[in-house]
Amino acid sequence: MLKNEFSDTIVALSTPPGTGAIGVIRLSGTRAVEIANTIFKGKNLLEQASHTLHFGKIVYHNQILDEVVVSLFLAPSSYTKENVVEISCHGSPYILQKIIEALLDSGARGAKPGEFTMRAFLNGRFDLSQAEAVADLIAAETETQQLLAIKQMRGGFTNDLKMLREKLIHFASLIELELDFGEEDVEFANREELKALIMELQKNISVLLVSFKFGNVVKNGITTVLAGRPNAGKSTLLNALLNEERAIVSEIAGTTRDVIEEKIVINGLMFRLIDTAGIREATDVIEKIGVQKTYEQIANASILLYIFDANESSELAVIEDIEKLKRENLEIILVANKADLCHEHQLGMLNYSITELYGYDLPIFEISALNKQNLESLKEYLVAVASDGRTSSEQTIVTNIRHYESLQNTYHALKQALDSLRQNNTGDLLAQDIRHALHALGEITGEITTDDLLDNIFSKFCIGK
Amino acid sequence: MLKNEFSDTIVALSTPPGTGAIGVIRLSGTRAVEIANTIFKGKNLLEQASHTLHFGKIVYHNQILDEVVVSLFLAPSSYTKENVVEISCHGSPYILQKIIEALLDSGARGAKPGEFTMRAFLNGRFDLSQAEAVADLIAAETETQQLLAIKQMRGGFTNDLKMLREKLIHFASLIELELDFGEEDVEFANREELKALIMELQKNISVLLVSFKFGNVVKNGITTVLAGRPNAGKSTLLNALLNEERAIVSEIAGTTRDVIEEKIVINGLMFRLIDTAGIREATDVIEKIGVQKTYEQIANASILLYIFDANESSELAVIEDIEKLKRENLEIILVANKADLCHEHQLGMLNYSITELYGYDLPIFEISALNKQNLESLKEYLVAVASDGRTSSEQTIVTNIRHYESLQNTYHALKQALDSLRQNNTGDLLAQDIRHALHALGEITGEITTDDLLDNIFSKFCIGK
Repeated sequence: MLKNEFSDTIVALSTPPGTGAIGVIRLSGTRAVEIANTIFKGKNLLEQASHTLHFGKIVYHNQILDEVVVSLFLAPSSYTKENVVEISCHGSPYILQKIIEALLDSGARGAKPGEFTMRAFLNGRFDLSQAEAVADLIAAETETQQLLAIKQMRGGFTNDLKMLREKLIHFASLIELELDFGEEDVEFANREELKALIMELQKNISVLLVSFKFGNVVKNGITTVLAGRPNAGKSTLLNALLNEERAIVSEIAGTTRDVIEEKIVINGLMFRLIDTAGIREATDVIEKIGVQKTYEQIANASILLYIFDANESSELAVIEDIEKLKRENLEIILVANKADLCHEHQLGMLNYSITELYGYDLPIFEISALNKQNLESLKEYLVAVASDGRTSSEQTIVTNIRHYESLQNTYHALKQALDSLRQNNTGDLLAQDIRHALHALGEITGEITTDDLLDNIFSKFCIGK
Repeated sequence: MLKNEFSDTIVALSTPPGTGAIGVIRLSGTRAVEIANTIFKGKNLLEQASHTLHFGKIVYHNQILDEVVVSLFLAPSSYTKENVVEISCHGSPYILQKIIEALLDSGARGAKPGEFTMRAFLNGRFDLSQAEAVADLIAAETETQQLLAIKQMRGGFTNDLKMLREKLIHFASLIELELDFGEEDVEFANREELKALIMELQKNISVLLVSFKFGNVVKNGITTVLAGRPNAGKSTLLNALLNEERAIVSEIAGTTRDVIEEKIVINGLMFRLIDTAGIREATDVIEKIGVQKTYEQIANASILLYIFDANESSELAVIEDIEKLKRENLEIILVANKADLCHEHQLGMLNYSITELYGYDLPIFEISALNKQNLESLKEYLVAVASDGRTSSEQTIVTNIRHYESLQNTYHALKQALDSLRQNNTGDLLAQDIRHALHALGEITGEITTDDLLDNIFSKFCIGK
């Protein structure tokens, strides 16, 4: 996509839909100031300096639509590096609609989702991974999500990669040069230095690849299933956890709407607690068809909290249930509820039986959901399992699956390049491997893009960003 | 309420809640710039000129919360006439929440609904009726609502009244002076001039009082009941009207949610079409208890559209139904549906019978809902009935019931003053009547207010305005 393709000026409502005190309409493009000026009555916007605010009226077809404040950002000192005008109106959906219509009539075009940010990227304001971080930042619901998104928006892990990529490009060009000399068997690229560079890149990338497990948890939350027989105290535990932690999420309007699970945030990490009726009575209806659906729903769960009554449950029943619920890559945590009323030896026996039967320990937390005893240690353990010992203050955390896949591709291409080097393969094979690696690396930051890739990324943005 | 009562600086989210490209947080008060400056990293905001924009970071507890643009409006050149700072952030509810928390921690106080506009009023930016028009403007859903709200926000009918009020104050002070001279029987206030002034005021006010009927229709829409026997084509008519006109309303998100009636806008006027099941089969179940509820619901309806099948309905049945449905102040419009298939004499007979029985004509519209025949004339008639021949371009339309009541009180007090004058009552009675009139007039523009009145008005605003 070439720069001169967006000679047109785009417009969109940038604030959330609905009624509010203020609504902001954003224009970007060469003619942004000119188009705004046609419906703005006040100072002549064409004569004003960048980064200034102007009060006036919006008049269209001789009717005053609103009194507004206009913000001017002149190219290249704006979000998109184009001329940008923001019109801050009264937050009536009717008025916002009418002003947008007036701007469309005056020569603007309705912006597609993420088109402002796409222009910012195409005009070189930031790289593609930074543009993607803008969407992550807007979607941030927890402290950790916000921290990682803003870190990535400000450059993040790609800065290091860019430097190494530059070095690799240098080597690639030397090798291409060797190929030009064909049969003369010259060697411009020092093979040992190249090997060292590739290994450094591999080291960097493998650290990033490993970080994705945590990055993914941060971005998407960790799916946690609550299961247990009736009256084990599962609802009490859920409420106890929610009461203590939920406020962090529920203060933010609209975050928990339209989802069947309950979200809680512990230490900045989001847990999606799934507590379906099917699972709730799972041990009673385990063979019935309805349960199948529930199991499908939790197929991607990472943690299972199995709650049982420490006093009434037989160790056999607990083991029976776990047998039915266990699955690969599912971390099972046993929660012995009503432990404050319990004889110690009962739990000791259970632990012994599990070790005996399966040859491994399962963590058992003795709690009282009702009296909120020992919930802290359970929560700490949940965070430890979810974060795998990592924290968001680490520099190198990959949260984006697209980046993860490109990093994987880079790693494999580098591995092949290294094999080529070790086997003293011909320059053209080596050159091809390095080109693959450069391509995959370039996709992350957007040095290499396709229209499809960009459409795919920016169509997930909201309109007006 | 005194100005120095709001030495504190208030803060609120001014854009609608939810996720969007942009969210705007607004601060107002003496310390607005100072408080914003404590968490803003970029230029020193305290050294910047009014009406300028500044890009920078929001940093709190050593963490970057967001990259933002700050708008500076220095007193008195701002909405509230105080220092105002607007922080334009990424539209993540989490980030907006955190930045507001940081501002609260830094010395701001959460704003109450409408508190920015209340400060604008108390600081003399506009009068009370203009402040109220701000809320009307934000709530505007139709062109006529928007037109009348912006007219009122820019001064509206109160400008005229203010001048007349000044003159009345002049007379009041002369009469008070007469009272000071007590037994000397002087007469500073020319009784004939006073009489002329009062009559001029009365004339102005009566025009405004009459305009309220239309103003109320504009503001609240006109409640229109659809009734008719099964298969009369009522649903077809509703759909035909909705299909043609509804887009105007439904383009605006969220306006029709949570209401049982359907809203349509014709010529900028909103009609609330009530089409309940009870009324739908009203003639069949008219005696049943359930219908009572429906009738309560439509007790405030202004128009009844009675739809019948022009071919199958007997004139007796139509007259029977109307007898049951008619009510004082309910404009009944007969809609003869499927008229394209009908013999003309049938309708002529009906018309004759109605005139015969009741001594008056009811309008009958012969339409075909299915083929959308003659809908235009029906719609024109609906608009004519609703607007009572008025248009929104008239200068003097009162839309606010509080203004209407104050105008009524003024009118009555003036009438009594006039009676006093005609009966040559003593100056103290006359003075009292004029004081009442001045008080009621002053309430409209807010020269006379109480904390209760202000709380009542501004609590209906959204937070952040």
